[in-house]
Amino acid sequence: MKPVLLAVDWGTSSLRGALLDAQGQLITDRAFARGILSVSPGGFAAAFDECFGDWLRHTPDLLCLMAGMVGSRQGWQEAPYCACPAGFEDIAAHLAWVQPGRIAIVPGLSCERPGLAGDALLARVPDVMRGEETQVFGALGTLGLSQARLVLPGTHSKWVRVQAGRIVEFTTCMTGEVFALLRQHSILARTLPAEDAALNAAAFTSAVQLALGSPSLLQTAFSTRTLSLFEKMNPSQLASHLSGLVIGEELRAQQLSAGEQVVLIGSAGLTERYQLALAQCGVACLSPGAQVTWAGLHAIAKTLRTA
Amino acid sequence: MKPVLLAVDWGTSSLRGALLDAQGQLITDRAFARGILSVSPGGFAAAFDECFGDWLRHTPDLLCLMAGMVGSRQGWQEAPYCACPAGFEDIAAHLAWVQPGRIAIVPGLSCERPGLAGDALLARVPDVMRGEETQVFGALGTLGLSQARLVLPGTHSKWVRVQAGRIVEFTTCMTGEVFALLRQHSILARTLPAEDAALNAAAFTSAVQLALGSPSLLQTAFSTRTLSLFEKMNPSQLASHLSGLVIGEELRAQQLSAGEQVVLIGSAGLTERYQLALAQCGVACLSPGAQVTWAGLHAIAKTLRTA
Repeated sequence: MKPVLLAVDWGTSSLRGALLDAQGQLITDRAFARGILSVSPGGFAAAFDECFGDWLRHTPDLLCLMAGMVGSRQGWQEAPYCACPAGFEDIAAHLAWVQPGRIAIVPGLSCERPGLAGDALLARVPDVMRGEETQVFGALGTLGLSQARLVLPGTHSKWVRVQAGRIVEFTTCMTGEVFALLRQHSILARTLPAEDAALNAAAFTSAVQLALGSPSLLQTAFSTRTLSLFEKMNPSQLASHLSGLVIGEELRAQQLSAGEQVVLIGSAGLTERYQLALAQCGVACLSPGAQVTWAGLHAIAKTLRTA
Repeated sequence: MKPVLLAVDWGTSSLRGALLDAQGQLITDRAFARGILSVSPGGFAAAFDECFGDWLRHTPDLLCLMAGMVGSRQGWQEAPYCACPAGFEDIAAHLAWVQPGRIAIVPGLSCERPGLAGDALLARVPDVMRGEETQVFGALGTLGLSQARLVLPGTHSKWVRVQAGRIVEFTTCMTGEVFALLRQHSILARTLPAEDAALNAAAFTSAVQLALGSPSLLQTAFSTRTLSLFEKMNPSQLASHLSGLVIGEELRAQQLSAGEQVVLIGSAGLTERYQLALAQCGVACLSPGAQVTWAGLHAIAKTLRTA
């Protein structure tokens, strides 16, 4: 298999790269703990060369496409956001070329949601994504969908609405980050065991249900402490309880309807939790698999070859 | 004025004491950065003596009553919770005596709210307070009320319902702690100025309104970053915006009705914010003043003298 594309996912805290052939098949891949926060300004070319230089020298006509925070102001080169509604063609047509014809960054997306009608500051609320747009279009291509609701769980979960093949709106939920802050830095950290136990599905789903029927995480979170204080919950269940409260809160905010279908894009561990939680809402999941970033970048590379 | 009571408020992070006369008038007071977390187990008697020993030696028949986390498992001596519904007489009758007849700790309260009907783990959700019960009964006495809804904003805000002079139910909201975590430790900390500017009332009240109309803080919080990214909000407004989002979320969760009245017990800075925020809900505030802990402890001391 001859490599034609170096697909790179360069995020805040990690860097992954894969060699793909003309059909988009994975030849080999690499991962590094070299997220953009670990690279000093001006150091991106050197870091890139260190991680992937041998591949580029070995295949001189290799194209490289990158997605993620590498295109932010703190990254290698800023790739200005495409405004929603935005389709696959929009991001493919607005690559930011780091080396013309050779290395390019896929732009992120911005959207504006209705906020507070008539308010001077908050009439419209902006939102942004970088990297998820490539995963979304990769997933839509893999699943053959042009209309969907998608969730990409993580530090900052994204909920995305696609109509007629275009991302019309999306919302960021700070779910993963709020869980980590409560888990590690709040008073609840004193109650929770230092080491994460395996997911306790019963404690997790009960907490999801509690969150779905409660008005706010601000109110439910303290139960992690009091259930422990009164020994109503086993220490090994507490982290699953808190996780269920936070993910349940995220789902409540989405106002999902039973019978809906959601495309779920995430790591294996998060996918398990979100499948369990979405099942509590009567929502079924479609999973496009783990390689949606590579699928999205391969699809963009094809547009360049046929242009 | 002859001191008859040493009233002490010993919390997690601070220690305050006041000498009161037989009418409950304040003679003098002291404050120390000696919260219970700074005292090692077994070190409470020495810390107490260091701070107030001279007062006790000067007035040998002085009674000392303490409220707050000093009565927790991590405190000087555990004062078991009184279960709600609980009235003033219940806490006055269940003091935990550290030195019989001389130094006592007021018990905190526990309650159980309906949680997830029929669930093995979460059918009832417990909650606890320590110190706030004394403030609540002090405030009710000061204002002459036997029925009220009260809010005690702070790291862990308490919302309290009083009927026929008894606390029937209360709820803890982790408002202040979640604000501090987002302010100092989340991605939003990178956007927010390091120093807190004065409250920007316009940004604060707009954010309260946005939160009142939104399903979850998990969804609204990220706007603190995006409004800054697109320069739609001045850096000096951002902390007020985030504060409004968090406090607005707390109020939304209370399902307040316009025309309601709430008793507001808190520091001057928080009282200003909560008055502004509650006004957005059409809710009026009654303020019992700052010395409600002293009023509550004085009322308990009176029951001991007349017993």
